[in-house]
Amino acid sequence: MSARHMREVDRAEALRLLATVSLGRLVFTQHALPAVRPVNHLVEGEDIVIRIHEGGALASLAAPADVPGVVVAYEADAIDPDTHLGWSVVVTGYARAVVDAEETDRYADLLRPWVGQPMTGTLRIRPDLVTGFRLEAAP
Amino acid sequence: MSARHMREVDRAEALRLLATVSLGRLVFTQHALPAVRPVNHLVEGEDIVIRIHEGGALASLAAPADVPGVVVAYEADAIDPDTHLGWSVVVTGYARAVVDAEETDRYADLLRPWVGQPMTGTLRIRPDLVTGFRLEAAP
Repeated sequence: MSARHMREVDRAEALRLLATVSLGRLVFTQHALPAVRPVNHLVEGEDIVIRIHEGGALASLAAPADVPGVVVAYEADAIDPDTHLGWSVVVTGYARAVVDAEETDRYADLLRPWVGQPMTGTLRIRPDLVTGFRLEAAP
Repeated sequence: MSARHMREVDRAEALRLLATVSLGRLVFTQHALPAVRPVNHLVEGEDIVIRIHEGGALASLAAPADVPGVVVAYEADAIDPDTHLGWSVVVTGYARAVVDAEETDRYADLLRPWVGQPMTGTLRIRPDLVTGFRLEAAP
């Protein structure tokens, strides 16, 4: 296999890459332990929007609107298992519940769950730290 | 798109699915914040083995052999972006540094890094909690 190198991408390119896929992994702390769940997302401006189902592990993240939210990480990647070329992006920032009814309805239209479970909450992650890299064939 | 349902898989099936792919995401706590990195892995028995490079964020996980290690989560999935069918597995357990020289050499042979960075550490994750699901077409 030919040599590869890792090239860092800037914030704008990282968020653009994130918007090219619909699946990522939400990373959060649950009972003081690291936790992770695959979810589908949309990127709107710089924000990442996901939907959660009541009673799921993610519901504890749906902080009331008057608290600053909880810090989460969100990761997406597209790395070819054969060539090992591709990219990965990690966003870290505060997750807040979307409480506005019109916004919630709009996201419910835009962001259909991949499983039949009823979704009852919507989270918006505002990126603070954005990092990403591409794995490229070495020149 | 036809309906899908989520079926939980047991520990044995989850670990078997994990072994069918070579890329996953290590989830850990760094400076009290959730952190995540894509890495390649191998599954040996029930253990998940990954390699890290010195100075990377993961190096802080390489606890000395006389401490119990740190709790991490490890996630892998294979979900088709078009059909939304596939699976996801999450393992939670203690990560410990592999310090035995023979073992380290053996893993260095088995587990080639996907980028040109020199790898200087090896971690073994012993699964405590193993969860997973398949997204299947509804009958």
